[in-house]
Amino acid sequence: MAVIVQGPSPGSRDFALGLSKALDYNLVEAYHKTFPDGEAYVRVEAGPQEVAVVVQTFSRPQDTSFVQALLLADALRGLGFQRVVLVAPYLAYARQDKRFLPGEPVSIAVVLRSLSTAGYTDLMTIEIHKEEALTAFKGNGVSISPYEYMARQIGLDGSYIYLAPDVGALKRVERLARALGARYDYLVKKRDRITGEVTIETKHLDVRGEKVVIVDDIISTGGTVSRAAQLLLEQGARQVEVLVAHAILAGNALEKLISAGVKRVYAANTLPPHSSDLLQYIDVSPLVAERVKSILSGVE
Amino acid sequence: MAVIVQGPSPGSRDFALGLSKALDYNLVEAYHKTFPDGEAYVRVEAGPQEVAVVVQTFSRPQDTSFVQALLLADALRGLGFQRVVLVAPYLAYARQDKRFLPGEPVSIAVVLRSLSTAGYTDLMTIEIHKEEALTAFKGNGVSISPYEYMARQIGLDGSYIYLAPDVGALKRVERLARALGARYDYLVKKRDRITGEVTIETKHLDVRGEKVVIVDDIISTGGTVSRAAQLLLEQGARQVEVLVAHAILAGNALEKLISAGVKRVYAANTLPPHSSDLLQYIDVSPLVAERVKSILSGVE
Repeated sequence: MAVIVQGPSPGSRDFALGLSKALDYNLVEAYHKTFPDGEAYVRVEAGPQEVAVVVQTFSRPQDTSFVQALLLADALRGLGFQRVVLVAPYLAYARQDKRFLPGEPVSIAVVLRSLSTAGYTDLMTIEIHKEEALTAFKGNGVSISPYEYMARQIGLDGSYIYLAPDVGALKRVERLARALGARYDYLVKKRDRITGEVTIETKHLDVRGEKVVIVDDIISTGGTVSRAAQLLLEQGARQVEVLVAHAILAGNALEKLISAGVKRVYAANTLPPHSSDLLQYIDVSPLVAERVKSILSGVE
Repeated sequence: MAVIVQGPSPGSRDFALGLSKALDYNLVEAYHKTFPDGEAYVRVEAGPQEVAVVVQTFSRPQDTSFVQALLLADALRGLGFQRVVLVAPYLAYARQDKRFLPGEPVSIAVVLRSLSTAGYTDLMTIEIHKEEALTAFKGNGVSISPYEYMARQIGLDGSYIYLAPDVGALKRVERLARALGARYDYLVKKRDRITGEVTIETKHLDVRGEKVVIVDDIISTGGTVSRAAQLLLEQGARQVEVLVAHAILAGNALEKLISAGVKRVYAANTLPPHSSDLLQYIDVSPLVAERVKSILSGVE
């Protein structure tokens, strides 16, 4: 029997509740506070049991969410838990997954190695940006693709064109579109030979009169998606929606998306929700629950 | 030949400069920024050399200072540095050095293990609260006691009584007082048998007419030291000064110390300075420079 431990980071509560319901495991809320000097403190009253599943998403302030996750692993190990699974619906630092320039760190590898060292035996996240990054985690690391599950919950089907914002994101869209029996494509930047103007276009398909869904893993500042949506609408798309795993929406991202004409953003509930009519959150905790069940029963 | 890398946390700059001057090593400032979503980024342009000495104190926000320290280690390892020394004048989370209650983490062990895993081969800090905590660091970990050096810089001598705020802090004061040929004691709480009133008293010595120095490792909220100072003055001490390694001074700590009648607080420059006439900072970077020289020349 396992216990779900709800971590203190914003956005973890609902996910932990969802997981606890779907799995019928007891939910324990980790006690937490901040000392007057700013240091984090956590404490868990649970056990002794064999397995703990910590739900702690890496929401802002990410560094504190990360430290709290480390502290929780050590606390649970100290209580005698043999297997400590981290469910981090959103894992920060995933985009710094290589040294783009000399002298840079591989930040996600640093984060994952620390999580192993702190005592996590298993790690489960939603869409880690680049799955290869998981090799830095010493235990069993799983990144779950939420797009097909989300699409089916929303009712997105083969009548839409699914678009990757660039060729690097094509695989993710291809997998989704094939599962839905839909057309898919990716966007490219094109420079006009005469005017020098740079525009964004679909590589193969014509979007005139079509319902389009841009699929991406993260919306941070919203710049890429907003520019893409605006151009697709100019090129005659009937409507543009966005399907995204992690809706960070930093700064004025929401305003940018709205003024670009995006009809709706569908996001997984991996981060604390923004309140906006533009956004619709899809609870992906049942999807994660299935995978937790699999790994704990030894199927994975 | 080694290079000093100045970390981005507040308070690291002056310490790195001091170290660079004392050791005559080149100083490189790590480039750093915060992404729009709040993630930290660092980059170092240096090398290839054999040894890097990173100066990064764990000032507020501590969790970000910690993450930046981890990222710097990975960046320097990626550049090919074989030996990466962390000089963290103030190391956060040092007071959570055991499980005071079941279900708590040993936070300092978590921090130290992560620093090893990230790539630091050596760690040097000022006064880690409990030296035994350093065993969690896999490499060569050193905690430097700054009190005698500070006392000699200030001119504190055998004419003062040195006091520990409690019996647990006695060793630190004993070592200092013996080096200075001074009297020392510790404070105890005493409950009046009739009134039930709790007062703080010295265990052995009479402070009437004496110049007293309270010696402690950290002043956080200032509560303990303020109460002690007030009572010592009520008991007839001529003046009360405070010698401390880490002046965190959270919240209204400074006001508390002033209204308690503390004449002066001497603090090492391990954290960003507060501006107050009450405070006098002592630059301990030359003391650390000596130890860096020793470990790099293989003496330690």
